[in-house]
Amino acid sequence: MKKLVILGSTGSIGTQTLDIVRQGFPAEICGLCANRNEKLMEEQIREFHPKVVCMADEKAAASLRTRVSDLSVTVLSGEQGIAEMLSVCGANLAVAAMVGISGLLPVITAIGLGMDIALANKETLVAAGDLVMAFAKEQGVKILPVDSEHSAIFQCLLGGHTIKKILLTASGGPFFGRSKEELSLVRAQDALKHPNWDMGQKVTIDSSTLMNKGLEVIEACHLFGVSPDKIEVLVHRQSIIHSMVEFEDNSVIAQLGAPDMRTPISFALSYPERTKFSGDSLNFFDIAALTFDKPDMQAFPCLALAIRAKKEGGAMTAVLNGANESAVAAFLKGECGFLDIPRIVENAMENFTNMQNPTLQDILEADQWAKEFSAKKRI
Amino acid sequence: MKKLVILGSTGSIGTQTLDIVRQGFPAEICGLCANRNEKLMEEQIREFHPKVVCMADEKAAASLRTRVSDLSVTVLSGEQGIAEMLSVCGANLAVAAMVGISGLLPVITAIGLGMDIALANKETLVAAGDLVMAFAKEQGVKILPVDSEHSAIFQCLLGGHTIKKILLTASGGPFFGRSKEELSLVRAQDALKHPNWDMGQKVTIDSSTLMNKGLEVIEACHLFGVSPDKIEVLVHRQSIIHSMVEFEDNSVIAQLGAPDMRTPISFALSYPERTKFSGDSLNFFDIAALTFDKPDMQAFPCLALAIRAKKEGGAMTAVLNGANESAVAAFLKGECGFLDIPRIVENAMENFTNMQNPTLQDILEADQWAKEFSAKKRI
Repeated sequence: MKKLVILGSTGSIGTQTLDIVRQGFPAEICGLCANRNEKLMEEQIREFHPKVVCMADEKAAASLRTRVSDLSVTVLSGEQGIAEMLSVCGANLAVAAMVGISGLLPVITAIGLGMDIALANKETLVAAGDLVMAFAKEQGVKILPVDSEHSAIFQCLLGGHTIKKILLTASGGPFFGRSKEELSLVRAQDALKHPNWDMGQKVTIDSSTLMNKGLEVIEACHLFGVSPDKIEVLVHRQSIIHSMVEFEDNSVIAQLGAPDMRTPISFALSYPERTKFSGDSLNFFDIAALTFDKPDMQAFPCLALAIRAKKEGGAMTAVLNGANESAVAAFLKGECGFLDIPRIVENAMENFTNMQNPTLQDILEADQWAKEFSAKKRI
Repeated sequence: MKKLVILGSTGSIGTQTLDIVRQGFPAEICGLCANRNEKLMEEQIREFHPKVVCMADEKAAASLRTRVSDLSVTVLSGEQGIAEMLSVCGANLAVAAMVGISGLLPVITAIGLGMDIALANKETLVAAGDLVMAFAKEQGVKILPVDSEHSAIFQCLLGGHTIKKILLTASGGPFFGRSKEELSLVRAQDALKHPNWDMGQKVTIDSSTLMNKGLEVIEACHLFGVSPDKIEVLVHRQSIIHSMVEFEDNSVIAQLGAPDMRTPISFALSYPERTKFSGDSLNFFDIAALTFDKPDMQAFPCLALAIRAKKEGGAMTAVLNGANESAVAAFLKGECGFLDIPRIVENAMENFTNMQNPTLQDILEADQWAKEFSAKKRI
């Protein structure tokens, strides 16, 4: 259990820290310190039972002593009182949320006592960053950023957390926003013009039907060990955010980059390292806006079919894939229409007698069956 | 050095993989495989010198044999040829970039040979994900995603890379877009209305002058061990992306969330774990758009002053901070105007005789000097 001392407990960060503890975060409140809001400090003492507190302001401390005279809490005061409170409270993590340069000496005292620092007081580093960081290193304590930006950077550099939800982004393909009626007239040459990615023919057609995103949902389930209901597809027209992960604490980590496949390829080649390559950096000032839309499951039924196939499991995803390969090949040859692709896939899925735990041979046979069935049904 | 075999070398992913190697990625090309583009395969053989290649199409293989009869390369053909090529080529990483279900058996063969798989062929997992993932685990080989979305997710779950650049986001504060003339009329009560964050008075005023972002640049330099020229400030009005890091390969990792300080606080408390708490998940469909603008350094000189102070180093950042604390206090009391804040800070910085490697005592004295100098100059 974390043992906390909060420097600046009546301020914005201090009260929000206590709110997290109130919600059940497993922590003991060992000490509290505030400037002069003795009324709120009294409430905090009665709720969180620290054994020692300090008011920077002497008058506020005197008034607080009277208010809590029925309790065993020790009330200290002044700058010297803060140092004494830190040394007797027994905390292992100090939340540094005092305002301005006044936070500097208490942070140094806490580091000297071997406490990790949850740092909200940026002035400490602004005024004395070299000293404070060197002292923290020497004492072997962690400086954990609380500023939202620095916490973000810190989180971007870390790994190893459990997925709550995958946010899989989709460009929406060349026909985003079109109705089913409009889609019925689409030909192969229209579908082969993808807005953001330059890819092979099969995957470009799959992009235009959203089957590609459906296949990716299935792929992500296998790669990251999650069920389809933990994956949400977001249409993100700009293809700048390449996907995101949400964690237990609602924090979302995203990977962004120019739509250049060489970035993911080079990462797969150089993993676990990253290597420099000649592609372009993302210029955020060239991006008008990043937007998010719900996928239209009515106009693009392939996405829903893929999710359904994964939920049915067994050899059904092989049938989905086999029927889709057959349908896309026919569409590219002009032998069927755009809306026939989901119809062919659905028809194969509905006529297949599924099996669980298929062998490799079963999967190859299911693929073959789906292709033959789909070719026959088209004629 | 990675030893690569590329399955589907003449396709989009295959040619881009070779482009990365052409650019200097340290890899040996041990084997190549394509369907029927023997002309491009000949060029790839002459440039990358694999010892063995395979054409799935028998006719293309025959034609290729004639084309490269002056070389010692072995040209195999057909499905059996792919398996043979994999077993003799000596690669340790197979780039699986064939189209459709045709990629399944070669991937299984490569896993059986103990090769890691850079997987671009999603149909492999769609059709036989359970089998393939279990076999990879059994063989102790890695499946590294190449699909941009899955690579993004994979990267979001990792850590440990070196920073190329920090992209520090800024809301822009309540006066974003205003000219210097308009800012001269601003009063404390206007500045205390922050668009996104509910914070204390000092930091809210600092947000409105962009000094807060300047202090954060200095803070980030200390926390993440970078110089100020590796930090770029982006105005991001929505405060959804809390900051980002760019890496050597131009990949950008971002952390996003609702503007709720309890998320970074809870992360600092629970680090290195994450804990569930009752705040809201981000709903991307409620976000109209994420936008990025350049900060206006003319209208908001505090940001540039902070960067300058950090570059000058020594006790200058303590002076910047001390003068700013003094100026903000005066502004809150109505004793000076909004545009006097940067003037007071700049004046203190210009009149301070800087020292490098200050002691804690030097820093406290610099702070005190800056406050006294600023108070005197205001009168």
